[in-house]
Amino acid sequence: MILEGTHTRSIARTADGQGIRILDQRHLPWEIRWVELRDLDAAAVAIREMWTRGAPMIGATAAYGLAMALAVDASDAGLDAAYGTLVETRPTAINLRWALDQVRAAVQPLPEGERAAAAFARADAICDEDAELCRAIGEHGLALLRDLHAKNPDRPLNILTHCNAGWLATVDYGTATAPIYLAHDAGIPVHVWVDETRPRNQGALLTAFELRNHGVPHTVIADNAGGLLMMQGQVDAVIVGTDRVTANGDVCNKIGTYLKALAAHDNGVPFYVALPYTTFDPATASGADIPIEARSAEEVMRLTGPDETGRIATIRVTDSPALNPAFDVTPARLVTGYITERGVLATI
Amino acid sequence: MILEGTHTRSIARTADGQGIRILDQRHLPWEIRWVELRDLDAAAVAIREMWTRGAPMIGATAAYGLAMALAVDASDAGLDAAYGTLVETRPTAINLRWALDQVRAAVQPLPEGERAAAAFARADAICDEDAELCRAIGEHGLALLRDLHAKNPDRPLNILTHCNAGWLATVDYGTATAPIYLAHDAGIPVHVWVDETRPRNQGALLTAFELRNHGVPHTVIADNAGGLLMMQGQVDAVIVGTDRVTANGDVCNKIGTYLKALAAHDNGVPFYVALPYTTFDPATASGADIPIEARSAEEVMRLTGPDETGRIATIRVTDSPALNPAFDVTPARLVTGYITERGVLATI
Repeated sequence: MILEGTHTRSIARTADGQGIRILDQRHLPWEIRWVELRDLDAAAVAIREMWTRGAPMIGATAAYGLAMALAVDASDAGLDAAYGTLVETRPTAINLRWALDQVRAAVQPLPEGERAAAAFARADAICDEDAELCRAIGEHGLALLRDLHAKNPDRPLNILTHCNAGWLATVDYGTATAPIYLAHDAGIPVHVWVDETRPRNQGALLTAFELRNHGVPHTVIADNAGGLLMMQGQVDAVIVGTDRVTANGDVCNKIGTYLKALAAHDNGVPFYVALPYTTFDPATASGADIPIEARSAEEVMRLTGPDETGRIATIRVTDSPALNPAFDVTPARLVTGYITERGVLATI
Repeated sequence: MILEGTHTRSIARTADGQGIRILDQRHLPWEIRWVELRDLDAAAVAIREMWTRGAPMIGATAAYGLAMALAVDASDAGLDAAYGTLVETRPTAINLRWALDQVRAAVQPLPEGERAAAAFARADAICDEDAELCRAIGEHGLALLRDLHAKNPDRPLNILTHCNAGWLATVDYGTATAPIYLAHDAGIPVHVWVDETRPRNQGALLTAFELRNHGVPHTVIADNAGGLLMMQGQVDAVIVGTDRVTANGDVCNKIGTYLKALAAHDNGVPFYVALPYTTFDPATASGADIPIEARSAEEVMRLTGPDETGRIATIRVTDSPALNPAFDVTPARLVTGYITERGVLATI
């Protein structure tokens, strides 16, 4: 990832190795603020209150959270309690449970004195692996985008994406954005339609911020606009990330993804889901079995940003009651393919 | 319509009969501000800058605008110039041209001295007719909703609507909202899912305001949420208004309508379009032939509302470029029926 011209990662251990530093995404893009998380509670709050988000990043942060908990209490009881706290922070992304299971399995056979260090090492490995998985997703997606661009070589390749499945949601590269960054770097003239992604505006705030930092041409659109753009032939492919893909191929992702998949299907636009194997959940039969997180209605009723003076203000959007389901399910039948680290899996 | 407990109309002549008063919708719901429009330019600005909006209201305001112009210059040249100014204010709603044609046809045979009064009278008649058309739409829609409610009499009837096709968009009752108001008044337990309708938030601001004033239970949702709610069986019908229905039944309406129609179709939820005959445009073959208004990107990039202190502030949503197409086209194949003043026309 490129942040203000510098290559870095979105999560890393602090200098003393005992904590982690992450970007506090609540302030992006208006302010780039790194925060240090130094204990279990800080990690749990950061996930629950979305200082950080995105399925792989939730997993990585939780893995370190467990390591930090074990540094304080490495007993079996401490391990179980910390696992329980972290696994409850967000209900939908499967990477959270996957990462916690990885760390627990690595430390359970060890004496208490070795557990914290082993947990940190396992969390480091999860991060290294995630970066490599995303890079591989990017390589396979790049091949796809190269083929798509070859069909209309005289104009930019228009990709639509929803929410943020970029490097802010992963350790590096992103999932949905990895093919875009690699295509841009390879000289393919990519242009990205960035869905605003109400209510938290992760597209307008985070994905646009990433693309600006990387220099990728992009345009923010209301979530309502993608259908028209597809109907007008202005979208060559949709690529999104996901929080969980079930055994039958259903895709749980940010609320609104399903509507874009319907529009893509209706207009013959390929609809791709980019994900590492850590986001597959073969233990869940179909999308109907995934818990859909209901977040606070306040996220719909209020919006925060810099006012005319640059002060960060929160304005009211409505005084009526609101409902805020955070995810929806895109049936497998609407998915053209899954871009994974091993290649592109097509639906039958 | 009921505003602060009082029955009124959203457009009426001023006390001296020479101008009109409308609600300045730019300040709703935070402030109820009636403004008087007293000449052609004021009417043109009010339409172009969306002090008022909605296909029937645009037509009514333009009709009065032409009358006010004729009060200053009733010559053929004056008539043509005023017609030309007004017809250019918004490109998509067909009612604008329809209303202007009505007034022009009424005054053209008359001597100049009689034209202004005749134009005002014709504009009054357009308003009276619009209120009656909407009431009749409401009656036919009420019968539909009664049947839908009878299928699940033990729970509220959940209607989803997009944008504002309420009395703020018409002279009274609204189009999409007329069946809802009549059903509520008839004792059917209606609950309305109100799409926020980015970027201008006409749902969260205007439709929610109307429903609050009428006492109809409702919940504001992000535009992204409707697909999930339909998949979960939480929507019994979608009812929207329209700016133009073409000869083949394609429906031009606020951007994002198409996505809801796709989701309704995918989930077996009936999708109705409510409109008076003035919104049918048999001269246009299909939706592909309708000019789609591209509005300022600023409408996506900024949002205005009361801040923590109650001051009306404008905050930035993104610093990236944005695109703002205002309408999309829902193909006739996705429409269950058109609720008109004459009854419900089903698609074949």
